[in-house]
Order: sequence, then structure tokens, then C-alpha cells
Amino acid sequence: MTQDIHAVMQRAKAAANIYRQAEPEAIAKFLETIADEIEAIGPDLITTAMAESNLPEGRLTGERGRTCGQLRLFAQYVRGGSWADAVIDTAMPERQPFPRADIRRMTRPLGPIVVFGASNFPLAFSTAGGDTASALAAGCPVVIKGHPAHPKTSELVFGAMEKAAKACDMPDGVVQHVGGSAFSIGQALVQDPITQGVGFTGSFTGGQALVKYAQEREQPIPVFAEMGSVNPVLFLPDTLTQNGAQLAAQYAGSITLGVGQFCTNPGLMLAIEGAELDTFVEALGAELSQKAADKMLHEGIHSNYQKKLGDILQEKGVTTVHEPVEDVAVLEAPPALATVQAADFLENPKLHEEIFGPFALLVKCEDIDQLLAVWKAVGGQLTTTIMGTAKDLDDYDQLLPVAEEIAGRVIFNGVPTGVEVGHAMIHGGPWPATTDSRYTSVGTSAIRRWLRPVCYQDCPDHLLPAALRNGNPLGLWRKVNGEWTKRGW
Amino acid sequence: MTQDIHAVMQRAKAAANIYRQAEPEAIAKFLETIADEIEAIGPDLITTAMAESNLPEGRLTGERGRTCGQLRLFAQYVRGGSWADAVIDTAMPERQPFPRADIRRMTRPLGPIVVFGASNFPLAFSTAGGDTASALAAGCPVVIKGHPAHPKTSELVFGAMEKAAKACDMPDGVVQHVGGSAFSIGQALVQDPITQGVGFTGSFTGGQALVKYAQEREQPIPVFAEMGSVNPVLFLPDTLTQNGAQLAAQYAGSITLGVGQFCTNPGLMLAIEGAELDTFVEALGAELSQKAADKMLHEGIHSNYQKKLGDILQEKGVTTVHEPVEDVAVLEAPPALATVQAADFLENPKLHEEIFGPFALLVKCEDIDQLLAVWKAVGGQLTTTIMGTAKDLDDYDQLLPVAEEIAGRVIFNGVPTGVEVGHAMIHGGPWPATTDSRYTSVGTSAIRRWLRPVCYQDCPDHLLPAALRNGNPLGLWRKVNGEWTKRGW
Repeated sequence: MTQDIHAVMQRAKAAANIYRQAEPEAIAKFLETIADEIEAIGPDLITTAMAESNLPEGRLTGERGRTCGQLRLFAQYVRGGSWADAVIDTAMPERQPFPRADIRRMTRPLGPIVVFGASNFPLAFSTAGGDTASALAAGCPVVIKGHPAHPKTSELVFGAMEKAAKACDMPDGVVQHVGGSAFSIGQALVQDPITQGVGFTGSFTGGQALVKYAQEREQPIPVFAEMGSVNPVLFLPDTLTQNGAQLAAQYAGSITLGVGQFCTNPGLMLAIEGAELDTFVEALGAELSQKAADKMLHEGIHSNYQKKLGDILQEKGVTTVHEPVEDVAVLEAPPALATVQAADFLENPKLHEEIFGPFALLVKCEDIDQLLAVWKAVGGQLTTTIMGTAKDLDDYDQLLPVAEEIAGRVIFNGVPTGVEVGHAMIHGGPWPATTDSRYTSVGTSAIRRWLRPVCYQDCPDHLLPAALRNGNPLGLWRKVNGEWTKRGW
Repeated sequence: MTQDIHAVMQRAKAAANIYRQAEPEAIAKFLETIADEIEAIGPDLITTAMAESNLPEGRLTGERGRTCGQLRLFAQYVRGGSWADAVIDTAMPERQPFPRADIRRMTRPLGPIVVFGASNFPLAFSTAGGDTASALAAGCPVVIKGHPAHPKTSELVFGAMEKAAKACDMPDGVVQHVGGSAFSIGQALVQDPITQGVGFTGSFTGGQALVKYAQEREQPIPVFAEMGSVNPVLFLPDTLTQNGAQLAAQYAGSITLGVGQFCTNPGLMLAIEGAELDTFVEALGAELSQKAADKMLHEGIHSNYQKKLGDILQEKGVTTVHEPVEDVAVLEAPPALATVQAADFLENPKLHEEIFGPFALLVKCEDIDQLLAVWKAVGGQLTTTIMGTAKDLDDYDQLLPVAEEIAGRVIFNGVPTGVEVGHAMIHGGPWPATTDSRYTSVGTSAIRRWLRPVCYQDCPDHLLPAALRNGNPLGLWRKVNGEWTKRGW
């Protein structure tokens, strides 16, 4: 098997030698054609994904739109060229005591990348999802390890990618697909000497395993593992007083969206004790009791949810607010809500762990200092959210420095679920949310994970990549002698 | 001892909480004051460094200039604000099917950084060198592990840093200095849970050890280790014919510069066999024989050079061109040159290793294909150099893709020694040259190693960091809705 994987990686390497020279326009066209071909699969893709994931039609249709939109956004981004990070320091032959050479740099692709499909986004974070789109945009061939929870969906999408590769005359092996559920497949992919980077979205355990595999390699490679978080939400006193009922409805929606199977699910809520908090907790429980129990993605996730939920509700000081329904159909996950006093929370690390599903734990704090202590205790997060009126934000002006330090994204008066695919988005954060807080896995900046800079010193103009030539034939924004400009000379 | 180190890191953490909020102007002023205070030490710094490193006065005076220039360049860069990588996607409340939130991001400091001083640049890559300057510029406190080869120099420079910190009202612990030569000190620094990143320049063995220490941590942290390379130089046929004598003089200078103790020293030369090559080898040998044997940095480096040089000259197929002088004074390192046939080189990995000192191995290749094979065989490099006339570059047009893949910097018709501290410089490269090819340790971009992006969603304008406010009070270049602009609104 390891031998088969090595053959796969050798094809990827052969493809890399050609694909790294592809013009931005050719890469952009390839990404757009993948989007077109995914859409051309038609309703079959949605019904297949529905059967394999238990997700509803509307959600999967939206997710297909996001997947194709993401591919087209990267196409546009590749054409724009800002990924090149073109920087030029021109020669200063007269400088004393030594002349300065002409020095220019831009980014070049890392090489073959391995992407692990995620089960909770069978389209947008899987086969042709964000990791794949960003790596292809960077000029790297991709070997996709399809997620065993949706093999047919993965094969359908990969078929569309193969068609696109052929239509765009891309090198053989620019995209490849590996199925199977044995851990040894993932290990062989990560440890193959040809592999130059790894993208993963999933559990902490899964991410840690990939990091460990990578550490056993001779050559270290970047492993970008996004491992989820509890996404703490602060509810400040004045907004609870002013907007309690509305917040309860909004957050009941966020907790149960996608059966709680989002890495940005609000699993932890923090607030200062008071009458307005009691009212809010009651309202939130009532809202959750109106939500139907939906089916989870697969048996592993479902049994994990049931087990962890059952356990946490037994922990010292944890009070169940909304009882999960006892008689549920196969795979169904009832929403649940519990509260705990901050003192109990702080001394029990089990309560800090993510429970993947439609559950939230609300921590009641005596005062703002205790709330800050709880907030800091839970470790690195993808997001943290501050719910507060203007008065709240005036009253508690010490929050932002803490928020910045624990999370990759700080949200004001919104919900953490729903990650915009744009230029400014950061979907990442300090460990254990991810393995490298310096990168994002969503948005155009996700391309940076798969690029390295190369510097050209006194290179004849006609040999330089177009992005760095004097005339600026691609019309890029470039930093020339420290200033941004589109001018050439 | 581990306990002492933890106390050091706790002070760094306390400093981080304050220093991360410092205004760019305050950080810039701090960096400039460090430069001023280093200069204020006067001749004492140079004589101390001379005594501890055996480097000559002129070199150390130049290195002091580089060190202070580097600090001032970072000061200017911090004021300019492009390190912030400010990106703004404004709200689209009317967008269908979902509105878009206002999303903005910029970089924030990682936290306390540990920097290991390097022996071969007692000023520019040591206590207040590039790693320290870039980490302080990023808003991170620095704990410096002084190199045991130049403890007095390190203390002198650190004294200047402390004075600057006091004069600029910086928090206690913003810079700290740890001496000693036990490996356990480095291990404790890297493994302390407070440490958020590591900068190192030195040997492959040293860099690998730090990576291993870091891998044993619970939280993974970035370790940027720059571990040197053999910096292959290609001499193409026409330039050897046209410029042989001049090239011999130029490269004899580069090989022996700083007694060969540069990570960019040209340790490997590649050329195609022919009469012009024989003439060049003879000329280069003659030039090297004119060079005096200078003293190396310390006994460890010297004995390593003697041992490795003695060994390699005994390897199969290796022919000594310039015999090292036998009777040398203590610590002196005679320059040396040897040749080997490509076939022998390719089958003997020992010949691929760096020999730190004034030695070069010239590999004679039968044709361009064999030369390409040798070039690809030596692994990741900081630099690679192509020496060729216009005719050469026309005749051999397949070189650049290979050069880009193996090295961080590709030089045309120059020498690899001498690394410009600028915006475009990349001093980094694929493993084993460094542990992460996506970063540089020289030039303003070195700051990126110590920054992580933070994203603000629907944050009230007055709470945002100045770099992200609507009015653009800092006047930065920002990417707004995908376009670079300095405009505010």
C-alpha cells in the first residue's frame, strides 16, 4: 500500500514540474472549469451527498454554491496576482561602501500537497473544497484523501475535477484521489518524501495524529490542521437586559445550525450572574426545545456526541437547562443546554473540551474578573464573540486585548457560525484550534500556506517571471523600493 | 535551572501583555535607541568582539554598521505599517442570499520569542541581530540565549538594549539575556510553555536539536532554524572561456571571505569538463594559494573544519587542487580546493555535506544533464548561483526552474556571500537549508515569522486598532475590497 501511495506521489511530482510553470490565466481557467464541471453534475451530486451526510437539500445546494464560488474567487485572485507578493529593490551601483545588487522576489509553489476531506462539509471542505482550491491556485498539484463518510460524493466531485483537468490540458496527476478508511493511508501520504504540505480540517485527535506523522519525516513539512474549538461567546449585562429574547432566538439558531456540526459552533457561553441572565437562560432553553432533533453526519460523530453529552451533564456543578429528548430516531441529535458556575468550570478541564454537536455550556461568572479568567482558561480558539451594547463596550473596555490573544476571529454582536469566504477572513487561531496560528484555511489568504518566496539577484529581465519584469506586463501591484506601485519602467 | 528559565519566561509574558499594545512609533523609537546605544559603546565593542571572535576590526566595524542599520530599517518599516497586512472587506447588508458582515484583519504579535545568538556574526546575527530586531519590531518580547563563543560581546550589546528599554519606558522584561553553554538551557527555553517562537542560525545539528525539543512540547510553535548550505555555483562554458581569470579572483575572495564562515559560502562548484575549466581550476588554485590562513571563530569550528577537510580529501575520486598548508598557527584555517568527477560525487552523499570554512569542492560534469543531476542531488539551499554570459544563458535555458526549486535566492553573475538587508531579500530556502522555506531571516519580511493575523468582524470603529479604522489615521496601504489603497472614508 505504501508503494501504491508512493506511485501516486511520484505522479504528483511529475505534474508539479509542469504545473508550477503554468501561467496564472491557465490556473484560473482550470479552477473555473472545475466549478463548471461540478455544477454540470446536476441534482445527482445533491442527492448523493444527502444520502451520505444526512444534510438537507437546501444546505447542500448552498454548500455547492459556496464550493464553486470559492473556486471562482481563487481564479480571480490568481489573475489579480497579489498572491505573488512581488517585491523589487532595484540596483544601486553607486552606493557606498558597497553597491546594491538588483534584488526581486515573488512566491513560488511548494510542491505536491495532500488534502484530507472533512466529513462536516462534504463539498466546501472536502474533495474540491478550500484546501484543494487554494493549493491548486498556488500552483501545487493536490492528492486528495477522500473522507470515508461520503465516498460517492467525493468520487463524483473528483470526476468533475478530472474532466476539468483534461479540458484544460493540465498535466496528468495534477489532481489525484485516494479512497479508503485505514489510518495507514493517511500516514503513508503524509510521510511520503515527495509530499510538501498537508491540509486538514477535523478533530483534535486527527490533527494531532497527522502532526505526529509529519514529525517522523526527515524533512519537516507544514501541516495545517484546523481542529475546531468551543468558540466562547460573551453575553454582557446590558445587551441581556435590552435584547435577551432576541439573543435567545439568534443563538438557538446558531447552536443547532447544521446539527451543531461546525467548527465555529458556539459551544461555550460566558456571562455575569444576574436576573437578566436567568431570564436569558430560560428563554434560550425554551427556544432550543422548539428545535427538532436532526440526523448527524455519521454514526461515529453521533455516538461521540451522545457519549460526551451524557458525561458532561454528570460533571460536578453542571445543571441541565434543556433536557435532551430520550427517545430519538437513529443518528438524531437532540439540542441541549447546561449551565455551570465559573468556579466549577475553572477547576475541571473536562468542561473546556469541544462537544461536536448542538450543545452549549453556559458559564455563570460572579464578576468580570472571573469571566476574564474563564475566557483565558480555554486556550486557542477559531473565534470568540462579544455580545454587547455600546454601554456594555464602554463599561468593559478591557476585552479586546484578551479576545485578540485567544482567537483568530473576534466577532461583535453576531454569531460565529457562517464563515465568509473573502480577502480579510481568518479561519484559524492559536493552538489547539490549529497547528499554526499564522495561517487561515478560509479566504484568499489560504493560498499562503502553499507558497514560498524565491529571490532573484541580478537576473536578466527576459529570464525573470513575468510578475517581476521591469515592464510589469501583468499589471500587478508590486512593492518597489519600499513603495506599492503598479508602474513599470 | 528549568525553574529559573520559567521565571525568565514569566517576565517575558508579563512584558508581552504590555508590549503588544505599544504604538508603532514607540516600537520604532525603541529600535532606534538600541542602535544609538550600541554605537555609544564605542571602540570597546569592537575590541571585545575581536578578542572573542578572531574577526578583524574592519569586518566587525562593518558588522556593527549592519546591525544598527538593520535596527533602523525595521524602525522605518514599523512606522510604514505594511507589516500589518491590513485587509478590509466592507459590509454588504443588502447582499443576497445572506448579507456580508464588515470583516477586517491585521497582524498581531505571537508572544515571547527565544533567539539563539550565532557565533559567526557576533553582532548582526547575535544578541541584537536580525532575529531580535524582527521579533521586537513585531511587538514580541525577546529572550536572547547568548552564544558562549562571545559572552562579553553579548553582554555589552545586551547592556545597550537594557539602557534603550529604560530610556524608552519599555516594560520590564521586554528583552532578557540568558548566558551559559549547557544544551539544557536551550532546551528549557524552547520547551517552556510561554515561548511562542524560536529563531536560530547555526549548524544543521543545532537546528535539528531545537526542532526536536519543540516537537516534544504540547503546543507546537514555529522554530525558524537557518542551518546553512553548500550554495552551489554553476560556471557555464562561455563565461569560463571569456572571464576565467576574473572569475578565479572573484571566487577566491568569496571562498575565503570571513575565513569561509558564512552560511552563504560557495562550498560547491559545478561545471562541464573542458580545457577552459582546467584553466579556471588552475587559476582558482593559484589565487587561493595567495590567500593568508586566518584564524577561525573558535576551537570547535576549527577542529571541525580540519577534521572534515582531512576526511573529504581522502574520499574516492577527490583530487586536491590547492594543498592546505601543513604548518599553521593555532585556530588558523588554510583555504583549500578539490575537484571530483560527477559520477563519484553522485554516489557519495558525504561529498554533499557542508564543510564550514574556506573550502570549495568543484564537481566536473560530462555534460549539462549530468550537471543538472548533481545540482538536484544536493537538496535545499539558501542560495544557488549561475555564472554565465548571455550566450550561456541562451544555450542553457532550462536552468531557472531547477534553481528556483532548490534555493531561496538565485544569483546571476555574482557571489553568494554578502546578504543585502532589504525588502526583497530572502535568506531562507528548502530543507535542509532551513526548517520552513516560507520565511526569511534577513530583510524586513523576517518580521512575518513572529506575527499572526487576527480578524475583526463588525467591530465598532473606535475599538479597532488604528491600522483598521475607517479614516486610516496611520495612512497605511490597505487592501480594501480586493484593491490596494491609502484612502479612508
